[in-house]
Amino acid sequence: MMGDVDMNWESRLVMPNGLKAKYQTGGNTRYYKLVAKPSRHSIVDRVEIEGLGYNGSIPGPLLVFRQGETVQIELENQLDKPTSLHVHGLSKPVSQDGIPEIEPTPLIKPGESYVYQFPAWQVGTFFYHAGDPAQIPQGLMGPFIILPNDNQLTREQIPYRDYVLVLQQWDIPQGEIGKVTPGTFKPKKFDQNPNFFTINGKSFPDTEGLRTKYGEKIRIRFINKSSASHSMHVHGHDFQVVSVNGFPRYNIYDDTINVASGQRIDIELLSINPGPFPINGTKTFHQTNNGKTPGGMVTKLIYDK
Amino acid sequence: MMGDVDMNWESRLVMPNGLKAKYQTGGNTRYYKLVAKPSRHSIVDRVEIEGLGYNGSIPGPLLVFRQGETVQIELENQLDKPTSLHVHGLSKPVSQDGIPEIEPTPLIKPGESYVYQFPAWQVGTFFYHAGDPAQIPQGLMGPFIILPNDNQLTREQIPYRDYVLVLQQWDIPQGEIGKVTPGTFKPKKFDQNPNFFTINGKSFPDTEGLRTKYGEKIRIRFINKSSASHSMHVHGHDFQVVSVNGFPRYNIYDDTINVASGQRIDIELLSINPGPFPINGTKTFHQTNNGKTPGGMVTKLIYDK
Amino acid sequence: MMGDVDMNWESRLVMPNGLKAKYQTGGNTRYYKLVAKPSRHSIVDRVEIEGLGYNGSIPGPLLVFRQGETVQIELENQLDKPTSLHVHGLSKPVSQDGIPEIEPTPLIKPGESYVYQFPAWQVGTFFYHAGDPAQIPQGLMGPFIILPNDNQLTREQIPYRDYVLVLQQWDIPQGEIGKVTPGTFKPKKFDQNPNFFTINGKSFPDTEGLRTKYGEKIRIRFINKSSASHSMHVHGHDFQVVSVNGFPRYNIYDDTINVASGQRIDIELLSINPGPFPINGTKTFHQTNNGKTPGGMVTKLIYDK
Repeated sequence: MMGDVDMNWESRLVMPNGLKAKYQTGGNTRYYKLVAKPSRHSIVDRVEIEGLGYNGSIPGPLLVFRQGETVQIELENQLDKPTSLHVHGLSKPVSQDGIPEIEPTPLIKPGESYVYQFPAWQVGTFFYHAGDPAQIPQGLMGPFIILPNDNQLTREQIPYRDYVLVLQQWDIPQGEIGKVTPGTFKPKKFDQNPNFFTINGKSFPDTEGLRTKYGEKIRIRFINKSSASHSMHVHGHDFQVVSVNGFPRYNIYDDTINVASGQRIDIELLSINPGPFPINGTKTFHQTNNGKTPGGMVTKLIYDK
Repeated sequence: MMGDVDMNWESRLVMPNGLKAKYQTGGNTRYYKLVAKPSRHSIVDRVEIEGLGYNGSIPGPLLVFRQGETVQIELENQLDKPTSLHVHGLSKPVSQDGIPEIEPTPLIKPGESYVYQFPAWQVGTFFYHAGDPAQIPQGLMGPFIILPNDNQLTREQIPYRDYVLVLQQWDIPQGEIGKVTPGTFKPKKFDQNPNFFTINGKSFPDTEGLRTKYGEKIRIRFINKSSASHSMHVHGHDFQVVSVNGFPRYNIYDDTINVASGQRIDIELLSINPGPFPINGTKTFHQTNNGKTPGGMVTKLIYDK
Repeated sequence: MMGDVDMNWESRLVMPNGLKAKYQTGGNTRYYKLVAKPSRHSIVDRVEIEGLGYNGSIPGPLLVFRQGETVQIELENQLDKPTSLHVHGLSKPVSQDGIPEIEPTPLIKPGESYVYQFPAWQVGTFFYHAGDPAQIPQGLMGPFIILPNDNQLTREQIPYRDYVLVLQQWDIPQGEIGKVTPGTFKPKKFDQNPNFFTINGKSFPDTEGLRTKYGEKIRIRFINKSSASHSMHVHGHDFQVVSVNGFPRYNIYDDTINVASGQRIDIELLSINPGPFPINGTKTFHQTNNGKTPGGMVTKLIYDK
């Protein structure tokens, strides 16, 4: 799979438990459509939320661009309230920044659509989210990645696998700590007292593992738009911090990184210690589902033969 | 305004919504007087707190020094409890450090005064606060800046504008989340469950914007003595982290920085993307006033013609 | 004391309020025994917890190794539930990593024992803890340090004193904020709403100070496995960040560092400003015992003659 045939970074980019959005291209433009609408989503076996999703997905699907392309994202509002779309961390003209409370940028009413357009000038890990902060903890955010152009890269610069992990937390009505009450729930408006903790929308044990083979270099992109820091730890493997918020970092080695609210941290590691090993947030309550262990913001690094 | 006439960094230093304290000089000494006393302060339209201020101001006024000066701060205690003054992060003789529970430094009784004196040896962003931790979340803290001597600097090293932003949070008695109850309130003693989030004492939309003109280099100094990290994001502009806690940093570019409790982070950006753009904490509940949007720890970068 | 006789880093490594575990050696192996069992522990005068300890100690005793040794840790389970042992941050074979929910590594039943074995290949500050996240906030964690071999070091590279500080927080049943109710208490299972804050198991004023003499270079190792970040500040002394999570850092000077959950940060400072000075977490509520000041995550740097 990793032979000369597949010198394509984009095909190696994966959102476990999630999916890449489909797109259209024309000239140098890549066009995605996102529909914001009420969406049901299962966080973990028998716990479903009535949240807000993009294209029915919580978090929203993965949007990928190549450096130098023109970004076009059509946002259709199927919510019952106005919304807008902000891509966090990629500087762009104010009219396309999506914070209408402050900026001269449109507020999209229910039933309306708008096409955002700006250049994908900066390589890096970003995310998109609703301009209204009250809609984000309900699910309205998703990953947005700009890859370098492959033809500028040597074979060694491209990771064998490139995993996108969106970190979220939810305040879901439940009974006493230590038990999970099955059902369908509307999360509270803000994640102030969270009791469920997800990676790409799933809590352990429903998180899909990250697959690798011995000898690969893999990248993991942590994205956090929750209201807490998540201190992410990879067992069995030291790693290099290669990018913080889209800006390269050099010669920083680590085993536990603090991903603060609004931040994106890209790490790379060598798969030289066969697992499976956990990849997890280190806060103990975050490793539970409403206080029930095992659970929470935990996934695995799995070695394939 | 930014011509040859004004090669003076100090005049470019501004605390929006706040004010610089007046001072006296004599020889190499700069003398400020701070009076700690109960103070009423409006956080946002129709929400007033009965807190504790310095010179009636919450947060306290901006104190500015030049490197090499001798600092003199007279603290007068008009509270009904003892207090003291600690300047956080600038090493000084223990007798002037202001933590009398541990140090041989005076506890200032109600009605008494004390003059703290120590050298302003280190350029950087600091803050002063009451030695008693229970007085700080009531308002007893303020910014303290030591600037380099202008005559050591080239024109290019001095920012056109230099903004000081004090980040605070408040636990104010209110009704249900999502509504603001007008009135005058005594904040709880500690900011454990905060519901109001301020920059220089004001919540959005009452925060005064940061003004710039196209082509300027501006500095922003974030200061946090609250009990939470605040992840600060500038829209439309990448920035350089130039100083952390008074110590220079090099070649670090970013768009979202985590300002932990007790920390001060100075950033510089080039005003090359006309706004207005938000500057805000990224935690969603922190962008509200008791859960009501818009609000919270949000200000603007405004371009003047 | 610091003459040629004592060119031994290990003898300079101290856990104030704590103790070093005894060990046996054979060949290149260093063997420790840890017994996990219910343990009573006094956090501060008249406040005792019924927690879980290793060898009766909360946090567990200090384990020290030299780079190149083989680690052997026998874990005996005297709890009423299964447990396991994970050393955080030191890559090791999966069978010895101690997270049986995910890894092929044993779950140790009550009454059983297991000997973990792996190489101490990486110099640095680590910690050990129970694999079950619900057991950790009850006390089941402790410091784990790998020192370089002295014979590879010059005299200047070895700190005069090397202090290990484990940062913890506890959610203990108490009455209203501002008062301490004496008694013996079972902490809540997770440290979500903590009201006591300890360094090596003790709150101020029961924390044992860090002793130094004028002119010494001392190291302080902060270890955090709680569910909050602790922003640690040393009064009167700037410091150098020399290691983060076991990886060296260069040319980073600071006065307030954020130690996130799961992280270990080593700092070094020169004792050139006679105190006593506080060393403390900066969050105000964390400087109290259930809201009563003085208290909390505060210790002292004390100068001996």
